[in-house]
Amino acid sequence: MNALRHTISLVALGTFQLGRRMKSQHLHGLLLGTGLGLSTIASVTYAQAEAAKVSRKLNISKFMAEPITDSATLLEDKENMRHRMELMIMEIQAEFCRALESEEFNGQKFKVDRWLRKEGGGGVTCVLQDGDVFEKAGVNVSVVTGWLPPAAVQQMRSRGKNLTENVKLPFFASGVSAVIHPRNPHVPTIHFNYRYFEVELPDGSKQWWFGGGTDLTPYYLDENDARHFHKTLKSACDEHDTAYYPKFKKWCDDYFHIKHRNESRGIGGIFFDDIDEPSQDSAFKFVTSCARAVIPSYLPLVQKHKNADYGTKEREWQLLRRGRYVEFNLIYDRGTKFGLYTPGARYESILMSLPLHARWEYMHEPKATSKEGDLLMVLRNPKEWV
Amino acid sequence: MNALRHTISLVALGTFQLGRRMKSQHLHGLLLGTGLGLSTIASVTYAQAEAAKVSRKLNISKFMAEPITDSATLLEDKENMRHRMELMIMEIQAEFCRALESEEFNGQKFKVDRWLRKEGGGGVTCVLQDGDVFEKAGVNVSVVTGWLPPAAVQQMRSRGKNLTENVKLPFFASGVSAVIHPRNPHVPTIHFNYRYFEVELPDGSKQWWFGGGTDLTPYYLDENDARHFHKTLKSACDEHDTAYYPKFKKWCDDYFHIKHRNESRGIGGIFFDDIDEPSQDSAFKFVTSCARAVIPSYLPLVQKHKNADYGTKEREWQLLRRGRYVEFNLIYDRGTKFGLYTPGARYESILMSLPLHARWEYMHEPKATSKEGDLLMVLRNPKEWV
Repeated sequence: MNALRHTISLVALGTFQLGRRMKSQHLHGLLLGTGLGLSTIASVTYAQAEAAKVSRKLNISKFMAEPITDSATLLEDKENMRHRMELMIMEIQAEFCRALESEEFNGQKFKVDRWLRKEGGGGVTCVLQDGDVFEKAGVNVSVVTGWLPPAAVQQMRSRGKNLTENVKLPFFASGVSAVIHPRNPHVPTIHFNYRYFEVELPDGSKQWWFGGGTDLTPYYLDENDARHFHKTLKSACDEHDTAYYPKFKKWCDDYFHIKHRNESRGIGGIFFDDIDEPSQDSAFKFVTSCARAVIPSYLPLVQKHKNADYGTKEREWQLLRRGRYVEFNLIYDRGTKFGLYTPGARYESILMSLPLHARWEYMHEPKATSKEGDLLMVLRNPKEWV
Repeated sequence: MNALRHTISLVALGTFQLGRRMKSQHLHGLLLGTGLGLSTIASVTYAQAEAAKVSRKLNISKFMAEPITDSATLLEDKENMRHRMELMIMEIQAEFCRALESEEFNGQKFKVDRWLRKEGGGGVTCVLQDGDVFEKAGVNVSVVTGWLPPAAVQQMRSRGKNLTENVKLPFFASGVSAVIHPRNPHVPTIHFNYRYFEVELPDGSKQWWFGGGTDLTPYYLDENDARHFHKTLKSACDEHDTAYYPKFKKWCDDYFHIKHRNESRGIGGIFFDDIDEPSQDSAFKFVTSCARAVIPSYLPLVQKHKNADYGTKEREWQLLRRGRYVEFNLIYDRGTKFGLYTPGARYESILMSLPLHARWEYMHEPKATSKEGDLLMVLRNPKEWV
């Protein structure tokens, strides 16, 4: 499969480079969507090659891979929110991946998979696995079109969306999401996701909204870390509306709750959905601020703790907490469920959020007076950090 | 928590022994349901102490703990299916636990937790963790009464049950279930579950049915093992109806399917639900035969492979497959979902099915020509073994 992935990258890259260099040739290359048996005939025509020339103006080299939408289209219609969002999430992905790579001890790099989806759109999945600092880090961009199944429409209606019932509706979804599981138990896990959604109604009108959030899952509680993390997110929110942080902080605590254990997955952060005001432009700028706050909220914690000493006891506690992370993601997380139930979903990109290792012990309960007990206390009683 | 569990066992045992020895005293002991904050005042009256004398006729010492229903009641109404089932599952639990213990190299034993449920009933959870032969083995009995939430009624109606809609219905459920994760990757994981269900309808009538199954999850395919396992289950089925094995073998393949990966969890076995014919007695005898087939289907495989050599490669493959096991149990398994969504559920008993360790690698795919590839081929194309 490694060989296959390599081929895909080469084919994808090759097609693109050929597109930039050649004018009159009509090439056929077989693009394989990894793991899902998708196959698409990529046909680089004269017109596309011409259009690709425009792409030179878009500095693609700063991204992890070529965007999903072709560069000419992205540049030609710059005001289109689909395009603004795609460029933003490609940038966030690259900046975050580069920032994480720079923390590795031995120059470990992200592997990059650019994939296309038979049903429309595609994505760029970047994974750094078995690093010295990051045991498993996944940063995914997807830009997808398709038809919302009636069940998904129903679920959105239950959230208050004014969508027609019992019909399949065309949708567009794009987003960046990441889960970073460091090796050192003193470095917390971070997750973030920023997304933009459009649904077309039968009358031709469109509904759109943004959603997202960033949250932290420490294995050992460092109150300074918690305050720094929440303060950074609060600042990003406050730039736009001072009502946002308190509201989205609570939403985050409510969302990342492992109901059967009555404990939180971590110490929260912010979480929101269905943001469609005050204007599309303002909402986009708010989401952009949040996404830009990820690096300053998290990298200092990595730098502070990545060389901390730890032993088997700390490692086993980390693995137990990772077991809880798996429970949340597979039982409750809406994104994971929506993803896995979407026909043609690329499950490897959805499940990249799962840790390299996890552990489940029957009836494990740390001493209340231990460091592990201190964390549990906060997970059972979410608190205000700023 | 270990101290707490120890207290519970002592309290439970103590109450029972007192009940047997004392006549006129009225004792109050605090029985704590572990992990769920349940508490019940156990009151041993003269009448109960008298009744407990009868229990001497029931050889409780062969069970892992005292049954949930008191011995006098179990003995007095021997024809009641609730009681026949409880005695059968207590026996199966004990025989299976003892058989597994006898395979351990250093005399490791199951820990036994007898727990009561505020909402009605209780269970006996036996777990052997970190053994030399069994990395994590859980064998659980539960005997539970309560009210079916309307959502569960709805789900049963969708399966064809003739239940009144939009009302809470009183139910009784009892069963034995086990998941055994051995340490050696050449020894397969086994799961089985045999259960009896009653629902009372508003007109006072009762619906009852049995369900269950046994299935095998090898990490390396040994075709002789697969044939032995399926043959043993088939014999148990054939005693009752030769149509059972083919039907329930297919049901098992369909049920233990990890949809998003389009592969089976293991090499199957038998699975069935809603068995309410030809008679209650026949159905019970069929389920009993299946439960009795577990030891002969599985123990020879443990004995054959528990000393086999293996290295890091085999261990890592085993952990990856255990990750898939976790995916199935948390995303698809009906029993896990029903359990976790039931108010007052003892989640530690439900999640004891999860392995001690699991692993997730992004885009892992073994070579088609490897031993690992051989297994995957069968998981992707379930076959007939007998």
